[in-house]
Order: sequence, then structure tokens, then C-alpha cells
Amino acid sequence: VNVLVVHCHPVPESFVTAAYGRVVAGLARAGHEVRTIDLHAEGFDPVLRADEHRRHLEPGAAPELSHHVEALTWCHTIVLVYPTWWSGQPAMLKGWFDRVWVRGVAWDLPEGTNRIRPLLRNVRRLVVVTTHGSSKLTNALEGEAGKRTVTRSLRLMCHPRCRTQWWAYYGIDTDDLARRRTFLEEVETRAAAL
Amino acid sequence: VNVLVVHCHPVPESFVTAAYGRVVAGLARAGHEVRTIDLHAEGFDPVLRADEHRRHLEPGAAPELSHHVEALTWCHTIVLVYPTWWSGQPAMLKGWFDRVWVRGVAWDLPEGTNRIRPLLRNVRRLVVVTTHGSSKLTNALEGEAGKRTVTRSLRLMCHPRCRTQWWAYYGIDTDDLARRRTFLEEVETRAAAL
Repeated sequence: VNVLVVHCHPVPESFVTAAYGRVVAGLARAGHEVRTIDLHAEGFDPVLRADEHRRHLEPGAAPELSHHVEALTWCHTIVLVYPTWWSGQPAMLKGWFDRVWVRGVAWDLPEGTNRIRPLLRNVRRLVVVTTHGSSKLTNALEGEAGKRTVTRSLRLMCHPRCRTQWWAYYGIDTDDLARRRTFLEEVETRAAAL
Repeated sequence: VNVLVVHCHPVPESFVTAAYGRVVAGLARAGHEVRTIDLHAEGFDPVLRADEHRRHLEPGAAPELSHHVEALTWCHTIVLVYPTWWSGQPAMLKGWFDRVWVRGVAWDLPEGTNRIRPLLRNVRRLVVVTTHGSSKLTNALEGEAGKRTVTRSLRLMCHPRCRTQWWAYYGIDTDDLARRRTFLEEVETRAAAL
């Protein structure tokens, strides 16, 4: 299976970056084809520019994003690895959705209809690995905005039977090294089993 | 009343930018003190950097963001004007939350507790003016991620009785000029009545 892993954390020594490493290790162990996008490492610019917006009804992403588009259309599974901030994706990753998942790549709106047609039918699984500063209860009360964005909005552009998985570490603000180690082990094991 | 209007759209001739103008006109008509932040015009960088993340448990935003912090602590009402993309805020605006609403500005976590203390008790009203490509029904089904981020997560950092208002224009992908004009009129009228 072709797996695209998208990593978004500014700090190389962070817990999230460690989880990213374990995801890739687990996938490699299972013999999958793996491609990675490390948004901070490549200095991705998340801001949709005026020229991109002016042509947002035309198909295709900005030319400099062609390797992102190629990876999106190549993969069968997408794994997003990021910290949850303000109950959603960091700006860096949100901008990857805004600029890469555009018309002609992720969706189309055929002439004369107002019904979105999904184009990423190659994607049959969406996995999120994320950390939350607050507890599971607080997140549930706040409505888990970022989870909805992935499991509802993005998922609609994938295969109709696309499955979503949510591997979350809650309460990172109240630290526990043993719990962290356990989570990292689980991430690698689950990635190897994908 | 001191009102901070935060505008986020890359295109000056966009419908959202027109709505922003009407918000400011309405507020000025009502005699409020108005400050504006136009994120694209000032070339705001939404990416939280490694050095900012490494010190995210220390109070205060990055020094170059001091005018944002000052505006946040000065205002009684915040009006956010932006297009909804992927059911949430554009990366540019999400990054404004990530980088400006930090510890010591928007919240504190007093030593020995794991309970967030809100610091923006000066803010008694949060208003969102936004557009959605899809219909009101589609948005409800998708879970309105961006609405949750504002009315639940951000609101928790404001005055306990802070009120939220949601002025949304649905279905912008199926255009209707008369409906747009009506919406802009309403926006100005409602802003004048704040």
C-alpha cells in the first residue's frame, strides 16, 4: 500500500516529531511504500495568495506545489501527524489543505451542478496522530473541531468507503513520561498493522 | 466600546473584504472606538516557529507581535471577518490564534493546577462574519469546525459572560448578487447596532 505521511511540528525534538518517526518506522517494517512530507522542514508557505484565490474556480494547485499534488494522487493511505492547537490543525497544516486540496486535485464542481465530486478516490484510509494539551473530556466539550475537519470535510473528497482513524494523546500539558513511551510504542505497532 | 476588527482575505475585491468594509463603516457610524488588523495587508506570518514553541510555556508572544497583543487586551469586542475554508479559518487566521493567543496573553496555567485561567476578561463579545461555499445544511452535517473553535475554545479565554454572534453567508459557490447585496446591508446595520 502507498502511504503518504504528512508531518507538521516546528520542533525536531518534540513528542509529535518522535511519533512521526515511529509511524514511518512501523510502516517501513510492514513493507509499505512510504512517502513523507515534513512541512516545517521544507518551509511550506501555508498562506493562500491573492493570485491563487483569484483562480480558485480553475482546476489545479499553484505550480510550485506539484510534488504535493503528485503525492496526494499517488497514495492509498494518508497519515497526518501534528499537535492540536485551538482544537484544530496548526496554521501550517491548515494551509496545506487550503492550497493543495483544491479544485481539480481533491474535488470538482461539474458545470451546471452544485454538488461537489470527490477526486481523491485513491485514498481509502485517513489516519490522524495528534496531541492535545487538554483532557479527552475538555476536547469532547469543545467539539473537536480539527477532528471534524478531517473525518468529515476532507474525507468527503476521498473514496466513498474511506475509513478514518484517530490516534490521540490527551493531556500533554500534564506530563507523564511512562505514558508517552507507551503511546509511542502503540503508534509504531499500529502503523505496522495498517 | 472598543472594537477590534480582524480581517483575513487575500483578495481586496472579494466579497469578504467588502463585508469587512461594511463592518468598519457600521461601527464608525455608531461611534465606537475601532482598531483594525488586516492580516494579508500586513503580511502576517501564521507559522509558529521552533523558538516560539520551545518557550510556549513562558508567558508572552514573540516581540514582533506586540501590537497584536496590545489590541487584544485593549478591546471589548472582537469581530473576525474571513472566508470559511475546509469548515474552518484560513491558515492565516488560524496562525493568528496559534501565535498571538498564547500563555500570558489569552490564558494562564497557574503553578500546581491543570486548569486554564482566562486572561482576556476584557472581551465581552465575539462576532464572526464569514462566508461558506456550501449550504447551511452541508455545514451543519460537517460539524462547523471553525464555529466550534471560536464559540467554544477562544471564548473560554474571554469574560465568562462573553457573548458570541455568527453572521454567516452560506452557498457562495452558487452566486446571487441580490442576496449578496442584502447580506452586506445587514452586516453594516448589525455592526452599527453592536
